[in-house]
Amino acid sequence: MVDFIKLAQPGISDLSPYQPGKSIEELERELGLTDIIKLASNENPLGPSPKVLQALASRLEDLARYPDGSAFLVKNKLQEFTGVEPERLTIGNGSNDVLELLARIYLAPGKESVVAEHSFIVYQLVTKSLGATLRTVPTRNYRQDLEATLNAITQRTSLVFIANPNNPTGSWVTATELISFLDRVPPHVIVVLDEAYFEYADELNNTESIGYPNGLHLVDQYPNLVVTRTFSKVYGLAGLRIGYSVSNRDIADLLNRTRQPFNVNAMSLAAVLSAIDDQEHLRKSIALNREGMKFLMASCEQLGLDYIPSAGNFLSINFGKDATPLYKLLLQEGVIVRTLEVYGLPCHLRVTTGLTTENERFVRSLRKVLQAGW
Amino acid sequence: MVDFIKLAQPGISDLSPYQPGKSIEELERELGLTDIIKLASNENPLGPSPKVLQALASRLEDLARYPDGSAFLVKNKLQEFTGVEPERLTIGNGSNDVLELLARIYLAPGKESVVAEHSFIVYQLVTKSLGATLRTVPTRNYRQDLEATLNAITQRTSLVFIANPNNPTGSWVTATELISFLDRVPPHVIVVLDEAYFEYADELNNTESIGYPNGLHLVDQYPNLVVTRTFSKVYGLAGLRIGYSVSNRDIADLLNRTRQPFNVNAMSLAAVLSAIDDQEHLRKSIALNREGMKFLMASCEQLGLDYIPSAGNFLSINFGKDATPLYKLLLQEGVIVRTLEVYGLPCHLRVTTGLTTENERFVRSLRKVLQAGW
Repeated sequence: MVDFIKLAQPGISDLSPYQPGKSIEELERELGLTDIIKLASNENPLGPSPKVLQALASRLEDLARYPDGSAFLVKNKLQEFTGVEPERLTIGNGSNDVLELLARIYLAPGKESVVAEHSFIVYQLVTKSLGATLRTVPTRNYRQDLEATLNAITQRTSLVFIANPNNPTGSWVTATELISFLDRVPPHVIVVLDEAYFEYADELNNTESIGYPNGLHLVDQYPNLVVTRTFSKVYGLAGLRIGYSVSNRDIADLLNRTRQPFNVNAMSLAAVLSAIDDQEHLRKSIALNREGMKFLMASCEQLGLDYIPSAGNFLSINFGKDATPLYKLLLQEGVIVRTLEVYGLPCHLRVTTGLTTENERFVRSLRKVLQAGW
Repeated sequence: MVDFIKLAQPGISDLSPYQPGKSIEELERELGLTDIIKLASNENPLGPSPKVLQALASRLEDLARYPDGSAFLVKNKLQEFTGVEPERLTIGNGSNDVLELLARIYLAPGKESVVAEHSFIVYQLVTKSLGATLRTVPTRNYRQDLEATLNAITQRTSLVFIANPNNPTGSWVTATELISFLDRVPPHVIVVLDEAYFEYADELNNTESIGYPNGLHLVDQYPNLVVTRTFSKVYGLAGLRIGYSVSNRDIADLLNRTRQPFNVNAMSLAAVLSAIDDQEHLRKSIALNREGMKFLMASCEQLGLDYIPSAGNFLSINFGKDATPLYKLLLQEGVIVRTLEVYGLPCHLRVTTGLTTENERFVRSLRKVLQAGW
């Protein structure tokens, strides 16, 4: 038989697939457990706004119709909410879709993208799938080093990815650092600022003055800046797959020409309209996360565990040795968190803030397993 | 400012976006009409199975969780339904997703794909977006000519697309023609058999012996054959975006490595489980389509209009001169059908079968507009 793997384009045949967090159903099937909690995928434990659920219930019968590929109503709503004109918006099947489209438009064998060590793995996957070269810049204290990032840029660099805050570290770059970087990056290099956890970090500015920038306030000034956002995190719509980018009109035009004609489904388009309107649900979700983060940090301190300071809805905890056995012991307790080996952090586990009871159960299980001397 | 369009990869900067059928909402906005019917996108007028609606209503609260990227339950259900092992299945964000992935895996500048004249435009779009070369083979009586298709294959050919039946013509290739083609196509050339309208055509075999093949019965024998199917048509789930392919394991493996980790949303995954179970809804939908097709064909004959014999849920009618003015007059009547200029069929309009009342209204409006001497 012909070797169909060898016939694939360079980069594709050595791709490893993304490893998602284990699902509750999967763990049920594997271990026969019930009463499982999942704190593994940075999902909102409050779920979507109740207004979204109402809106969706009333739209179910329309599902035989193709979605509006132009996302007319969603773009208008986003314009209302962010001030950005529809011509600068691209709606994606999750922000993952937009990240991949940017790579497909600007990367190819011979081109390069620059990413930080420990940064969101999708940047690596989309770069490799195009046969392009990935340059990985070491972090400083788990933070993206924008000076080193600048130095890693060459004539062949098409894209630089900055996750702000970054998953899985939760670290962020400040407005000062980002602007200084944008002022010096060559104008032909597209800077992709992934703000999937924007809402959580932005709120911290109010209480802790962390100097976190809002990418949307910078896109006018820097035509090579593309900001991505998602409804999968604080908006509680990970299951529906919808995110967007804000860019200059030319890049938005290319993204829209390259995306699948019906890349975003009708339920997502309907959901977002109500989700944006319910900012009260957002505030509640953010407040719950702050409480959860404080509890997790305090618990780590009690347990004598280091963690990476995080502006997201998750905390990566350092256990000082390979944490996979610990992860497995937690699974036995019915608690799903995330290993970070593929991120170059084999000694860390990442835990998402959940409901108060879930956070407490995680800490209880963790304490039990640690005391048993894993 | 830097020209970000010029920086794009070859093929992308001259892409024209797909032109979807006009939506009811769009026509309402444009003409201020109400009581509009849309027979423009080959959607199922009965909508999804009522069982799907029930299943979705009970799943809404899960939407904050990422979907199961491995589509475990859907693949098991498809195995039950088709006999194909999960390792040979790829679930896509519509079959469009799988078609694009195949192109991304196997096409690049210097590679070629072969398509038929008047064939589904997405084959052209995905080929061009990769900077690959498109070879278009003339049809015979609007049917894909598989002998000519075979002759168009070169050393550079990676993919051949066969839509069976084809949209927008509704024409099909027979089992005899297809097998004779597959027996002679070079084994390194991947044949993509797009069976988006399979269920409608397959049923015709029972009443009219049209010799229509079932691609799934051929994939075992031909490792270079990839069959795609969708839930957007007779299953009434176009709004949700879900389709799949059946291929050999290596190709499925590449497709699964290359797709977005969460390419298919949670609602689609839940919907399909119930949709497959309700074969009675399918039978009703197919029967309604047959009635509608007979009515449309008889009406054309009464009106002295030629049409292309179709095995799908749509009929392309020849008006003998540029049909765009006629399309616009029908819009004024609140009837949306589809122009086929981009398919090289400027004198045809494509009409999807709707509910009986919708089909009647289309014919009434058409008669009125024709009599007024457009």
